[in-house]
Amino acid sequence: MSTYAVIMAGGIGTRFWPESRQAHPKQFLNVFGDSTLIQNTVARLQGLVPPERCLVVTHERYVEKTKKQLPALPAENILAEPISRNTAPCIAYAAMKLQARDPDATMVVLPADHVIEDVARFHEVLEAAIDQAQAPGALVTIGINPTHPATGYGYLQFDGPDAATAPDAEPQAYPVRTFAEKPDLATAERFLDSGDFLWNSGMFIWRADTILDQMETHLPAAYEAFAPVREVVDSDAESSVLTEAFQNSPRISIDYGVMEQADEVYVVPGSFGWSDVGDWRAVYDLSEKDEHGNAIQGNVLMHDASRCLVHGDDRLVVLVGVHDMVVVDTDDAVLVCNRESAQQVKNVVEYLHAHQFADYV
Amino acid sequence: MSTYAVIMAGGIGTRFWPESRQAHPKQFLNVFGDSTLIQNTVARLQGLVPPERCLVVTHERYVEKTKKQLPALPAENILAEPISRNTAPCIAYAAMKLQARDPDATMVVLPADHVIEDVARFHEVLEAAIDQAQAPGALVTIGINPTHPATGYGYLQFDGPDAATAPDAEPQAYPVRTFAEKPDLATAERFLDSGDFLWNSGMFIWRADTILDQMETHLPAAYEAFAPVREVVDSDAESSVLTEAFQNSPRISIDYGVMEQADEVYVVPGSFGWSDVGDWRAVYDLSEKDEHGNAIQGNVLMHDASRCLVHGDDRLVVLVGVHDMVVVDTDDAVLVCNRESAQQVKNVVEYLHAHQFADYV
Repeated sequence: MSTYAVIMAGGIGTRFWPESRQAHPKQFLNVFGDSTLIQNTVARLQGLVPPERCLVVTHERYVEKTKKQLPALPAENILAEPISRNTAPCIAYAAMKLQARDPDATMVVLPADHVIEDVARFHEVLEAAIDQAQAPGALVTIGINPTHPATGYGYLQFDGPDAATAPDAEPQAYPVRTFAEKPDLATAERFLDSGDFLWNSGMFIWRADTILDQMETHLPAAYEAFAPVREVVDSDAESSVLTEAFQNSPRISIDYGVMEQADEVYVVPGSFGWSDVGDWRAVYDLSEKDEHGNAIQGNVLMHDASRCLVHGDDRLVVLVGVHDMVVVDTDDAVLVCNRESAQQVKNVVEYLHAHQFADYV
Repeated sequence: MSTYAVIMAGGIGTRFWPESRQAHPKQFLNVFGDSTLIQNTVARLQGLVPPERCLVVTHERYVEKTKKQLPALPAENILAEPISRNTAPCIAYAAMKLQARDPDATMVVLPADHVIEDVARFHEVLEAAIDQAQAPGALVTIGINPTHPATGYGYLQFDGPDAATAPDAEPQAYPVRTFAEKPDLATAERFLDSGDFLWNSGMFIWRADTILDQMETHLPAAYEAFAPVREVVDSDAESSVLTEAFQNSPRISIDYGVMEQADEVYVVPGSFGWSDVGDWRAVYDLSEKDEHGNAIQGNVLMHDASRCLVHGDDRLVVLVGVHDMVVVDTDDAVLVCNRESAQQVKNVVEYLHAHQFADYV
């Protein structure tokens, strides 16, 4: 069997406004000053999955941008979604494409916009997951050993060693008991105290044939919508049949549609400096800081400023007497945001959408 | 006798960066959203001094801008300083021009960039000062009844009623005892407690012949530098003789050069909602605020923001979770400044001057 990566890059990333826009979402940003998040996602697979076995699934409007950012990937590895329908349809399509290429394929499904610091450990964890995925019917996910009662992540409960302790030297898979949505703080604290909850990383490992079988059983509406695609994969008819499949499929996540229903669900706990980089505050936390705790990009001048994230460009950005603030300056818009309020940026973008500011989103 | 206004508009206003620039200083800004400060300075003289008797002295680089902003003033009323040499040379020049026009002229010398709320009261105070200025050798200034121990203003000590109490119903002139530089806070508090200190407003009222006499006595170096100008006023030779006069004159303020030396110095205390609008914080204090205490110009969106001053333009400015902040957005630069740190903006501009950022000042 061969291992393939399927990188999900369909997000529109409203939380990084004004840098992220509908035309230029989060996964294509270089928020840490060097490569973009999707470039890093491919690069950190080096040694595990070569570029020719990396696939990206993205909305068709981002295909050209994806090809440009990932020139090492064969063009046919960029799969275009005609419409966004959450993760289940996207995964069904990718699994069918892979099966046509390699009936024995194992898929490593990864979000395009996460950060991982300890790549060696990440590979070890993925290898354990890939092993486990060879068991009949096995669906495997990666769970992150939680470091604090985060309310921004989903959780999963598992039968294994205390989630709060350092994970095994040798990563291994454990049965998943249940999935939980993003909790409130009290619930998150209970999860942490119990020692049997991990953060749901949104990374999945399974054989292409297994996920399609499980989808047929647990999510037949999506499976049937995509069944006609299987007949025309890689033919001239694929594009039009695919559009119909997406239109006919329910809009549902793979977590909710399959993982929560299936019997053979496993998790490999991992601890490798993971973040889903959910907002500007996370970018600040993950950025290199100067001696005043400032993380700066662009043409920036600070005077009595500390613990700030500033992303500028050509224009001069000057901060005077400013602390714990995020300033993001772009051609047509500037954001000044308290670091602790970074989560609220998405509300602003929703407001912009709704109130005649569509040019800015 | 006739009363003339001489509006001093030579300042370069570094404290309103990035709106104020060398090419576009404070007096030409509409920081309160309607007219510019210099337009307001002329407009509030209506009923006391008509436009044809308003003169403006400004650096020659601002002459065109001044004419454009003050179209009601005759072109010959805009006097150009070839170089900036503080207030004494500027006043010597204006006094000679006025004397040539009207040997009996009384001058009301006003900074171009102050704010006055109670114009009727301001007129009453000026009228008392104009009366007093008819006394032989009298130099008159306006002192502001202090409302707090400000450290940003000079003070003057006078022989009159308690400075802290409401000023007389009928404004009148009192002898000035001494002038004091901008004090530290402890000194300012002592000044206020004493009850005999007023803020030095920088407004002067005197006859043109009196100030020239007093300058001849107390500031002969400046007087002699300008003596040749007297001979050529309004002739073709004026411009070149004037340049030489400015070059030969010491760089000195009228306060230091004359007012502090002269014998017949008077002050009319006034209380008319005065501010010299010294920085962005003062603009905030003087601006109309919405129910969240925000003062906004331009294309601005606030989400959980309060007590902020935002001056934008076409670009969208978004504030999220931000309080007590000043944000000023211009084509090539954006300032984010704590309201309490507004005084430090001038240090930033000095830094920009000194460090290869000259394009931005």
